[in-house]
Amino acid sequence: MTNNKTPRLTLVGAGPGDPELLTRKGWKALQSADVVLYDALAGEALLADCPASAKMIYVGKRAGQHSMLQEDINRLIVQMAWQYGHVVRLKGGDPFVFGRGYEEVTHARANGLAVTIVPGISSATGLTALQTVPLTHRSCARSFWVLTATTREGHLSDDLQQAVHSPATVIILMGMRKIAQIARLFAEAGRKDLPVLIIQNGSRADERHLYTTVEQMVEDTTRAQIAAPGIIVLGDVVGLAQNTQDTSFWQQLKSLRA
Amino acid sequence: MTNNKTPRLTLVGAGPGDPELLTRKGWKALQSADVVLYDALAGEALLADCPASAKMIYVGKRAGQHSMLQEDINRLIVQMAWQYGHVVRLKGGDPFVFGRGYEEVTHARANGLAVTIVPGISSATGLTALQTVPLTHRSCARSFWVLTATTREGHLSDDLQQAVHSPATVIILMGMRKIAQIARLFAEAGRKDLPVLIIQNGSRADERHLYTTVEQMVEDTTRAQIAAPGIIVLGDVVGLAQNTQDTSFWQQLKSLRA
Repeated sequence: MTNNKTPRLTLVGAGPGDPELLTRKGWKALQSADVVLYDALAGEALLADCPASAKMIYVGKRAGQHSMLQEDINRLIVQMAWQYGHVVRLKGGDPFVFGRGYEEVTHARANGLAVTIVPGISSATGLTALQTVPLTHRSCARSFWVLTATTREGHLSDDLQQAVHSPATVIILMGMRKIAQIARLFAEAGRKDLPVLIIQNGSRADERHLYTTVEQMVEDTTRAQIAAPGIIVLGDVVGLAQNTQDTSFWQQLKSLRA
Repeated sequence: MTNNKTPRLTLVGAGPGDPELLTRKGWKALQSADVVLYDALAGEALLADCPASAKMIYVGKRAGQHSMLQEDINRLIVQMAWQYGHVVRLKGGDPFVFGRGYEEVTHARANGLAVTIVPGISSATGLTALQTVPLTHRSCARSFWVLTATTREGHLSDDLQQAVHSPATVIILMGMRKIAQIARLFAEAGRKDLPVLIIQNGSRADERHLYTTVEQMVEDTTRAQIAAPGIIVLGDVVGLAQNTQDTSFWQQLKSLRA
């Protein structure tokens, strides 16, 4: 079954969670979608504004279920585009920052689809700003390093073992399940007092965040019941947090301990 | 002179250049602006859609002129907010990624303004996607490190000297004027064949980009007359570029040399 539309893919980064943090370009792509393939992180709120005629297909993880295999998503994009025309693939964050967007685009082009890429705000860079935490500051950090905690094979990443010793602000995605190992690694490098900011569901209505230190991060996240998915930011820039006029990082930390 | 509006600041990241890559939230903030303070990187195209009543003030660099001092911008934000109400500060990229947004927010809060922060797509993470270059890929890089080439004092950054030896993809902002030093640093570390992607005016209609290697980057950028402002991406992920179905990184490199 085919139609007379040109088969094409628009790969859209949905941003970190708040539907309003989608770009205007991504928004326009959704308005002309024949099919939308989305996952959990991409914010279902966005789907309400898509054309009523568009087919919505969920391809992410549900609690207790496996997510669709990447190969199956790749195939589905191609099949839907040839069948219905314009496929919008909506992915949380930015699709080219740990997002497997590359695989989807490569497969789509190899199968005759025209591809447009619309970047999104990565949770790696866009979330600390909401806490008034800059990723760099002349007083304490001049660069930042973004990593995942583990390799695809489940080992603690070699890159992380190097990042621990770097002067960069360290931002760890998908690291909440390895938080004890991360804390140990930084402590062993003599950095137990390093400020840490943990953000869960960043920019969403249900955002939770926690200011702590390397030494206290396991205990504090356990007590606050903050879990995956979340980002972990380690660096002296966290100490600059000034989320409201009269609440500094250290005051927040003190009130947490009280 | 005052009015009866609440003095407030919305700090908006305009994204990397394409006005359509502004977020919907940033766009809405502009619609209710009484005053907009903008700079060159933030895309003047966005201003055309602001309310006709809004006051537009340019605070960035013009060719051959000094830009306004950060302290003067801080003061202007506060003065305009107390005088007119809602100030939107529109900054290129993300205001908290090497953007001095922290200074502006801190000063505004200390002077009684309510502040809202709207992140933007950083040119550090959002531009390689348009070239189908992922920042990480299981075949060649598991993390990425974002830096500027020099310190505020003009020295080559210590962080960069470490990044050269890291397994991360390295992304250098504001580095075009130090390109010879950067090339030498990587070559001395035994990485002369490392693929390099340079992007000028990324995502804009006048975007230019260049695929090269550490060994050839100075010669190639000189020949192509690509200069500041630009970003420099160094890493094996650049070799994955597949911007069109039949043009790989290596083919593009070959045609450049022909």
